[in-house]
Amino acid sequence: MPDAINVSAESLETFVSGIFRHAGCSEADAADMAQCLVQTNLWGIDSHGVLRVPEYLDRFQSGAMNTAPETRTLKAGSSLEVLDADNGPGYIAARFAMSRAIELAEQGNIAAVGIINSNHCGATSLYARMALERDMIGIAMSNVAPNMVMPGGSRPITGNNPVAVAVPTFGEFPFVLDISMSTVAGGKMLVAARNGETIPLGWATDKDGRPTIDPMAGFEGFLLPMGGHKGFGLALLVDILCGVITGGSFQHHLKSMYRYPSDPSRTAHLMLVINPLVFIGKEQLKSRMGEFFETIKGSPMWDKDSEMLLPGEIEYREERERRRYGIPLPATLYDELAQIGNEMNLDAVLSLVPS
Amino acid sequence: MPDAINVSAESLETFVSGIFRHAGCSEADAADMAQCLVQTNLWGIDSHGVLRVPEYLDRFQSGAMNTAPETRTLKAGSSLEVLDADNGPGYIAARFAMSRAIELAEQGNIAAVGIINSNHCGATSLYARMALERDMIGIAMSNVAPNMVMPGGSRPITGNNPVAVAVPTFGEFPFVLDISMSTVAGGKMLVAARNGETIPLGWATDKDGRPTIDPMAGFEGFLLPMGGHKGFGLALLVDILCGVITGGSFQHHLKSMYRYPSDPSRTAHLMLVINPLVFIGKEQLKSRMGEFFETIKGSPMWDKDSEMLLPGEIEYREERERRRYGIPLPATLYDELAQIGNEMNLDAVLSLVPS
Repeated sequence: MPDAINVSAESLETFVSGIFRHAGCSEADAADMAQCLVQTNLWGIDSHGVLRVPEYLDRFQSGAMNTAPETRTLKAGSSLEVLDADNGPGYIAARFAMSRAIELAEQGNIAAVGIINSNHCGATSLYARMALERDMIGIAMSNVAPNMVMPGGSRPITGNNPVAVAVPTFGEFPFVLDISMSTVAGGKMLVAARNGETIPLGWATDKDGRPTIDPMAGFEGFLLPMGGHKGFGLALLVDILCGVITGGSFQHHLKSMYRYPSDPSRTAHLMLVINPLVFIGKEQLKSRMGEFFETIKGSPMWDKDSEMLLPGEIEYREERERRRYGIPLPATLYDELAQIGNEMNLDAVLSLVPS
Repeated sequence: MPDAINVSAESLETFVSGIFRHAGCSEADAADMAQCLVQTNLWGIDSHGVLRVPEYLDRFQSGAMNTAPETRTLKAGSSLEVLDADNGPGYIAARFAMSRAIELAEQGNIAAVGIINSNHCGATSLYARMALERDMIGIAMSNVAPNMVMPGGSRPITGNNPVAVAVPTFGEFPFVLDISMSTVAGGKMLVAARNGETIPLGWATDKDGRPTIDPMAGFEGFLLPMGGHKGFGLALLVDILCGVITGGSFQHHLKSMYRYPSDPSRTAHLMLVINPLVFIGKEQLKSRMGEFFETIKGSPMWDKDSEMLLPGEIEYREERERRRYGIPLPATLYDELAQIGNEMNLDAVLSLVPS
């Protein structure tokens, strides 16, 4: 990254936690949010990392997002629950819901927990991966405010609603699929705009639904679904599972934090956990996933410039690099964060890692 | 359809049932398979309809597929089970697994049932829709023998592993998403070849992994994933959920019925059922899904040639038409089926519907 300043993950986490603490979050919530954001940067998913801190801070300060949410249970049946996030940060809500889904799956082998009245929760793989700690499969999904048009349509109908799935491999790294239902995530448009780059045709449309290569026109316009009607259908499904069946908000009842910075987003998430060790033993699962991965890695390529990558592999590699060499922050972002820290008189400092 | 003969759904079902009965299937299994295939034609998904009858018949006759399978339970925990299909037809196995998943979800609100050592099960929406009869959400998925390459790869790594999801709407028609993870399903290549058409670039590759427009080269080669690495990752996930964690077969352990017509396919399916009425009441779900659908249908289009279609809407419309005007069979297929019926001395006849 040109013009980047490498900071240590530890110092960045402490620093960001201090910002959220100063904004009014509890110590635990501030630490959890900071951990989520920095972990996302460690995986190399910069579009969902600490880049977002200023936005969240604004939302705490304007009262759009609750700094002291009290999560409560709305409906509880055997292995299925819906919770109310009390307009807290999506990171806290999604972690809470996944923790509960894991508890329920430990009792009943499979469980789903929805949580409504939440806000942006960042990379859904953060929550899917939580199930790995208990040797279980985690599925995490979220709706987002409509930002995606059906090809040919003029208005967004649903969000690019992300889904992540994590499967334990008991090997070097887990299987982690983390995708949104648009060709690319909205954050990539922000990154392209910050870097002064154009975007490929097929990523986004302008405000009228017509394809564009201008990242800011795309950011102000709408996303296009991956795989045409298939990705669009999957996005509708996620909106239904998160927002419709839970009694939460869906489609235009959600409010984008970019268009409505001072309003609750009313986001909804759904977490699903399955215990695969009911089916087969741990050693058997390890050897089967090992073989599954090896078959992929050993497959020949006719395009010698391509490499066969496993879902979760880039994140694994990137984290090793970034834990060692630091997280590269664009200078503008570094300055922005440092400025916020100054204004708050934070004790924490961002430790630079020599590159 | 040029050169098509319209036959009544009822007579086609009785006729196909007679074929499978003659091949050695039990009366119930023959009827169930015929019902599945004709229902798929009624939805307009001709690539997965009675077009497949000759292939299945060959597999019964060669002993590749068991006409009298005895399904048994391999593992059973609370809300999670794995069954063995005893190399029976996928239609029978998948129906059995979904019935069991529905039973378990009626007890515990959510359940997943895998079934291994199965064969081709056709359109997975057949099974997802079964949950609708109990007002529940059904998810059905299957792995298939590797037929899909990662872009740039020379060899297929996984199948285009279909997934279907059905959500009750209590309205005119349910939400039904039925997709495979390739840009198109393999059956479309057969249909194009039968119709003498070329295929668009991006559907398939030749045997070396290079893109092609020749449907037979594509059918003999490999499929390409929808949405690039996203669809490819989803296909890997389905293979893992169906074949890896269940103790079943995955990747190249499955045998394509086209390449290995005399061998068991070792296909695996997974069924997941969720009871949404734990979360909200039936009337509330009806009104929310109604609003969800209306928002989509009422959305303006800049491309006046496009129409906003709901997942499941085409199938609903097509079924109404075909129940009234008959199922259009290509003349070659009609002759092939009639010939099989003659050789078997079937009593059943295909009733023509005047077009």
